[in-house]
Amino acid sequence: MNHRMVFSTVGKIVWAEGVLLLLPYIVSLIYKEECSSAFLITILVAVVVGTLLATLFKKKDDIIYSKEGFMTVSLSWIILSLIGALPFRLSGEIPHYIDAIFETVSGFTTTGASILTDIEAMSKSLLFWRSFTHWIGGMGVLVFIMAIIPNVSKRSIHIMRAEVPGPVKGKLVPKMRDTAKILYTIYIVLTVIEIFLLRIGGMPWFDSIVHSFGTAGTGGFGIKADSIASYSPYLQWVITIFMILFGVNFNIYFLLLIRRFKAIGKSTELWVYLGIIATAVLCITVNIYPMYNDLPTTVRDASFQVASIITTTGYATADFNLWPSFSKAILFALMLLGACAGSTGGGFKVSRVIIIFKKIGSEIKRLLHPRSVKVITFEGKRLEEQAITGTTVYLAIYMVCFILIFLAVSLDRFDFETNFSAVAACFNNIGPGFGVVGPVGSYADYSVFSKIVLSVAMLLGRLEIFPLIIVAMPATWSKN
Amino acid sequence: MNHRMVFSTVGKIVWAEGVLLLLPYIVSLIYKEECSSAFLITILVAVVVGTLLATLFKKKDDIIYSKEGFMTVSLSWIILSLIGALPFRLSGEIPHYIDAIFETVSGFTTTGASILTDIEAMSKSLLFWRSFTHWIGGMGVLVFIMAIIPNVSKRSIHIMRAEVPGPVKGKLVPKMRDTAKILYTIYIVLTVIEIFLLRIGGMPWFDSIVHSFGTAGTGGFGIKADSIASYSPYLQWVITIFMILFGVNFNIYFLLLIRRFKAIGKSTELWVYLGIIATAVLCITVNIYPMYNDLPTTVRDASFQVASIITTTGYATADFNLWPSFSKAILFALMLLGACAGSTGGGFKVSRVIIIFKKIGSEIKRLLHPRSVKVITFEGKRLEEQAITGTTVYLAIYMVCFILIFLAVSLDRFDFETNFSAVAACFNNIGPGFGVVGPVGSYADYSVFSKIVLSVAMLLGRLEIFPLIIVAMPATWSKN
Repeated sequence: MNHRMVFSTVGKIVWAEGVLLLLPYIVSLIYKEECSSAFLITILVAVVVGTLLATLFKKKDDIIYSKEGFMTVSLSWIILSLIGALPFRLSGEIPHYIDAIFETVSGFTTTGASILTDIEAMSKSLLFWRSFTHWIGGMGVLVFIMAIIPNVSKRSIHIMRAEVPGPVKGKLVPKMRDTAKILYTIYIVLTVIEIFLLRIGGMPWFDSIVHSFGTAGTGGFGIKADSIASYSPYLQWVITIFMILFGVNFNIYFLLLIRRFKAIGKSTELWVYLGIIATAVLCITVNIYPMYNDLPTTVRDASFQVASIITTTGYATADFNLWPSFSKAILFALMLLGACAGSTGGGFKVSRVIIIFKKIGSEIKRLLHPRSVKVITFEGKRLEEQAITGTTVYLAIYMVCFILIFLAVSLDRFDFETNFSAVAACFNNIGPGFGVVGPVGSYADYSVFSKIVLSVAMLLGRLEIFPLIIVAMPATWSKN
Repeated sequence: MNHRMVFSTVGKIVWAEGVLLLLPYIVSLIYKEECSSAFLITILVAVVVGTLLATLFKKKDDIIYSKEGFMTVSLSWIILSLIGALPFRLSGEIPHYIDAIFETVSGFTTTGASILTDIEAMSKSLLFWRSFTHWIGGMGVLVFIMAIIPNVSKRSIHIMRAEVPGPVKGKLVPKMRDTAKILYTIYIVLTVIEIFLLRIGGMPWFDSIVHSFGTAGTGGFGIKADSIASYSPYLQWVITIFMILFGVNFNIYFLLLIRRFKAIGKSTELWVYLGIIATAVLCITVNIYPMYNDLPTTVRDASFQVASIITTTGYATADFNLWPSFSKAILFALMLLGACAGSTGGGFKVSRVIIIFKKIGSEIKRLLHPRSVKVITFEGKRLEEQAITGTTVYLAIYMVCFILIFLAVSLDRFDFETNFSAVAACFNNIGPGFGVVGPVGSYADYSVFSKIVLSVAMLLGRLEIFPLIIVAMPATWSKN
């Protein structure tokens, strides 16, 4: 293991966090808020820690193999969260450091689960930082760094592999850095368009920016107690559509840019994703209509909640906790499903589900005709056995983690539905669940132990489990 | 597809059911119960239907391939349930045929979920038949038939493969029929020992027999409103131990008979199974002790419930619905886990979990060292890639079915916890869940639609999904 390489890269990333913290610091100066000193101290901490790591572990060579990729990504996310939590703690607006860490991990992992009970009392700069972590975490912290810092490392594909979610990973263009730049350009352009569309609809600039951050990262931190419910139907529809857009594989936008429309038409994942959204909206609309007796509102609320949950954003315009069991069951299934691979959304991913269905189909054929050989294709390409195995094994480890986290959280005093949906909502980076942690509730009353467990769950979900397991293995840290 | 072969075999099995129904008929004569005529009519129906099927579809050849194996098993289980439900309906003691079918499917699949709200009002012979279906279904109806009828078919291994649960299937001895005989001899001997041990403890003969049937098949139908709670501690311990024994892979008993003790010592599945039981009992004992303040009762109740749930029996001596969340979460995890492969227990099976853990381990190694090749061994033998893939794909299809069944059942009016645990309890052939369907509740208030869905879930769980899917595929029924 090339420890020096890992720590020096982590150092650079912490340094970059210090730079990013300048933005909320400026916001705090604009609004003349007391917490500006908290940001200043945190920036200093980031610069000192970053410089120390980068100079103490001066790299001998800069080749990253897969193990180093996993290590760099996991350690970066952990340290970024620990430092990113400081402004909340130092300002005193979140009195306990564990709560601040929970909130920051929830931000970076684009979960949107909150321990805050009175969001509207928070300083604007802290609310800005909170939503900005969504935006940073959405596309991937390290992918972002690679896009802006020249020559981070050769073989940085291993970093991207470890950080970008999905079963099949590739580059859009031959050079890693160029791929990162294209992805971030698409990301920035979509975010800016949303900001303007929200502003045009009458949403104040500040609100437009933070909500666009939350949508883009499919995070879900809001700035109002009722999330998005008090905004106009137009604004709710804009956010609905952008949530769906940010849940699409970014490769689709790249194909759009290079005018390969046929390839888009053939993208199974895209059409399955849109088909599931349409079906879910239809079913929920029929199911909840008797509660509303008003079709436009019913369709709008159904669409918003479906888009919010399948993309794992977690904004809400209705307390779906009060919806009938069937609608809640659909939302629960969407929680597990998640958005497309290569998007900013979390969850298990639509493409994995497609691959699994295809594998089940081929297994049934094999049971009937043991000697037949069936090739599985996905998005027009033959899927290698390795990718299929990786997908089914991911499902297995996903289930194992889910049950272990659920057991740990059950030590807390809440009911089955609350605990189960809290685990689903954190592990899949959604935010709100059912029961106590529903859209109008919060995670404030969980014990310190549960908050730590759920923070780990959010990181496991965002980094797709394997990187963190590899960091936790003693063998990784041995000299050989 | 050899339809004739399938239908003629199903005919023989229905005929056999008629013979088996003589037992409860005799019981009804002994207790001079009115429902004896219901049994007589059902026996006639079984004989007529069986004879018709066997003669109309006189077989041309008797070779069974895997497709015919799946077909025979699925159709047999469905028709056996439809006919087995008649005595409940004809006697009028279960007024609705759908309810009677639910109860009978629950019996044959050894689930033990009940729609009865006043068990103690039922006729003894119907209670006997209800528990006897557990005993018949536990080891497998067709395996039983193969053990008693000579020369059912060449290649009957395909029937056993389709009916006996577990990831890796083999014969104990070269001849299929001999294997079936050995399995049934072990089964009968263990059942008889339990009957005597219960009788010695003061349980009446009738109670001893039906409870032994329920334990042996890991079914869980009782004859008292409070299940096993009102019996003495000695009787509860006997049932606890026998539930655990019937959850063990029967290969272990065969190894015991042929004195291969070393092989038993090396059986990973056995020791993991016992280890999980011990851990679960310990955790629950600590968790519920404050409710009891009496160590022997706490340990007894914890042990009984753990044994009952992990073996998917479903007897109860305590209303675990009232236990703290952590204990309920452990029981929920055990519900999904299930007992050992090759036992009468249901669920996902311990051996599959072991294989999946090993596969996850090898996948992590592969991520770190992409060129290394790791052989996975299980019970001392090298596992073929096919068996591993089969296991991970089984997990995938298990999850897909679980979510679809849960969505369908959510159309009913019950809460998340009730519906979710009802699906877990039926799909894994346990019986009681949490909430409304808890150990002191029943499935009576579910809609007709949900009862049908849950009946299908029980069959899917017992036959491990694939056979029923193959029957439901139109391609299976085509002429070619």
